Amino acid sequence: MSDSESEAKPGGPAAMIALFTDFGPAGPYVGQMRAVLAREARGVPVIDLMCDAPAFDPRAAAYLLAALVPEMPPATVVLGVVDPGVGGARQPLIVAAGAHWFVGPDNGLFAIAARRAAAAGQDVRAWRIDWRPARLSATFHGRDLFAPVAARLACGRPPPGAPCDGTAMQGWAGGDEWPDDLDRIIYVDAYGNAMTGRRAATVAPGARLHVAGTVLSRARTFADVPPGTAFWYENSIGLVEVAVHRGSAAAALGLRIGTPVRMVPAPVR
Amino acid sequence: MSDSESEAKPGGPAAMIALFTDFGPAGPYVGQMRAVLAREARGVPVIDLMCDAPAFDPRAAAYLLAALVPEMPPATVVLGVVDPGVGGARQPLIVAAGAHWFVGPDNGLFAIAARRAAAAGQDVRAWRIDWRPARLSATFHGRDLFAPVAARLACGRPPPGAPCDGTAMQGWAGGDEWPDDLDRIIYVDAYGNAMTGRRAATVAPGARLHVAGTVLSRARTFADVPPGTAFWYENSIGLVEVAVHRGSAAAALGLRIGTPVRMVPAPVR
Amino acid sequence: MSDSESEAKPGGPAAMIALFTDFGPAGPYVGQMRAVLAREARGVPVIDLMCDAPAFDPRAAAYLLAALVPEMPPATVVLGVVDPGVGGARQPLIVAAGAHWFVGPDNGLFAIAARRAAAAGQDVRAWRIDWRPARLSATFHGRDLFAPVAARLACGRPPPGAPCDGTAMQGWAGGDEWPDDLDRIIYVDAYGNAMTGRRAATVAPGARLHVAGTVLSRARTFADVPPGTAFWYENSIGLVEVAVHRGSAAAALGLRIGTPVRMVPAPVR
Repeated sequence: MSDSESEAKPGGPAAMIALFTDFGPAGPYVGQMRAVLAREARGVPVIDLMCDAPAFDPRAAAYLLAALVPEMPPATVVLGVVDPGVGGARQPLIVAAGAHWFVGPDNGLFAIAARRAAAAGQDVRAWRIDWRPARLSATFHGRDLFAPVAARLACGRPPPGAPCDGTAMQGWAGGDEWPDDLDRIIYVDAYGNAMTGRRAATVAPGARLHVAGTVLSRARTFADVPPGTAFWYENSIGLVEVAVHRGSAAAALGLRIGTPVRMVPAPVR
Repeated sequence: MSDSESEAKPGGPAAMIALFTDFGPAGPYVGQMRAVLAREARGVPVIDLMCDAPAFDPRAAAYLLAALVPEMPPATVVLGVVDPGVGGARQPLIVAAGAHWFVGPDNGLFAIAARRAAAAGQDVRAWRIDWRPARLSATFHGRDLFAPVAARLACGRPPPGAPCDGTAMQGWAGGDEWPDDLDRIIYVDAYGNAMTGRRAATVAPGARLHVAGTVLSRARTFADVPPGTAFWYENSIGLVEVAVHRGSAAAALGLRIGTPVRMVPAPVR
Repeated sequence: MSDSESEAKPGGPAAMIALFTDFGPAGPYVGQMRAVLAREARGVPVIDLMCDAPAFDPRAAAYLLAALVPEMPPATVVLGVVDPGVGGARQPLIVAAGAHWFVGPDNGLFAIAARRAAAAGQDVRAWRIDWRPARLSATFHGRDLFAPVAARLACGRPPPGAPCDGTAMQGWAGGDEWPDDLDRIIYVDAYGNAMTGRRAATVAPGARLHVAGTVLSRARTFADVPPGTAFWYENSIGLVEVAVHRGSAAAALGLRIGTPVRMVPAPVR
């Protein structure tokens, strides 16, 4: 059940390029990628979707990216760089999944977004990028390889073809061994709210969340509980999130990326 | 005494959209707002005026924003999100004050900027936003409600009218009980300089600043005092600021947002 | 041996404006500069090349900027603000060096980039900026002086001439006493990798790096050494960099900006 209106159109210009990296808000890396994009995809809007994706953790990042992707307009090119294996054996990858393009390392980072697109009946295709630039830094493929490919896609030049000659990968599926939802903390925001890799829509009504030795009830939003109270709720990208009203859940409960959580059905009364 | 040249023009395109939030420099929130703006107001420049406005503190943020607004070109749409009451009873708001538009929560955030525009003889008008999007996250009105409205204003579609049907609020004035200038620290920058909510233009010549048990004299700029010396001066947005030459005033004097200050006339000699 | 194709063209529009500052990722300063650029150079892409250049340290910043400049497209205007002497005696400066423009303080910040352009046979010219804006904050020349000048250059209006009437500085060379390469740590990134001011191309094959009482061997990239191992390598901008695979070199070895390093030839066997 494919919705052709909302699928990535090879040959059409991109709505925008969205950067999803673990480079952090400072440093010289995002700027160098933006310089490539400004030169190679002039006029295409570029946004920092996130600069603090879970560092060195493509699995946690994959669940976070999958939850964010529905917020991106059709034809967005996601340039994703969470790439602890840069310079090693992992391959560079293009994925077209439903309405979106993804360019980055083949380390599972795009696997969950692709799996969900497929589950929704959308086309998912993948190409290994065979093109290599004249200069390829061993440690910064984001600038030398992924950004130029993303720019070309954003300008409407589809793979396979110059400059990202690619080999279609039949039956590609990254992160095969990963579950559909991840019952762990995958991100802690600046306020100390802790997102999990579980979609709230998969949780039974009344379910409670066990985490770090505590059991939390569900609320609709912060204002529905007294200040200082810990709770869980469906956050703005559909994930189960642990929060404390006017406080830091991460500090109060000792949560960090990787902390396991468990959803437990409501007790029978 | 209204200067029609420099007032917000309903129906004219915006110079730019300026984001003023407490989301911090990382995280997935600013990126999602930018995705909405890139889609809904394509071609309009979007700048991060600040991403570290005083968190959860609309009052301190209001004095800071009021000092920054004169630096924005006419017709700028300020998209302001310092919104601890999101999901609660506070109303969404549009304000046209002099040359600028403001979109965000009706919690006082725009009150000081509006009051100063009115004091300068400029028109100030306000609308409650009655439009609601098809999907409205309980915790992220910045993305779902304020960004779409700001985009429509930026494209020259004025309130009231779709998609931000609004009710004109006669005699609106947020933050009524707040003073014209706030004698407290309202912001500490990355260097440790501590801004107050008082405009230097309101201070008598030779006045000293009492803060944290210390009395500081005025200087013109850092280079005018020896390294390590604390002083106060008129900063680049017209506010009284506490600083230490080649040091951190916040660390040296123990200053934080909310610390009270007091201006004292020069001693008679 | 001048390559006219790749030199800054007075009168031609800029590829982009690249901000190189020590303002940090938050705060109200970059936003105000961007507001000026959005108004005065509408349509010219603006990127944050770096917002965390070595603070108050024009020397370290000069070596970092010189390594980053080759990544910028021809005709880029670098707007550089690492300016501890703002409001003092240092002069405002425009430099045209090879393919790039530089606008900022005459404190050595652009000296190394200019010296390397000259060494490569490219034209280097410099102007003192005599123009002053109607309002000039004593502490924020980035907004009031450098950004307007950069905007005019980016729009193809060359110095000397309004609004940046300038005096050509014959034989200008900032940072005369500084070496061609700086054997110190000049930057520590978010991962704890520590860049030096030495170009790897100047180092003999097999050379080892002495730093903080330790001797490090060279590797090609992170994946070539076991996790936890410290090494040095040529980073993505050509500099000698100290790193630890899956760890923080700065934390492990106690490195910070200014820490001296020493390259030592390979032992004879």
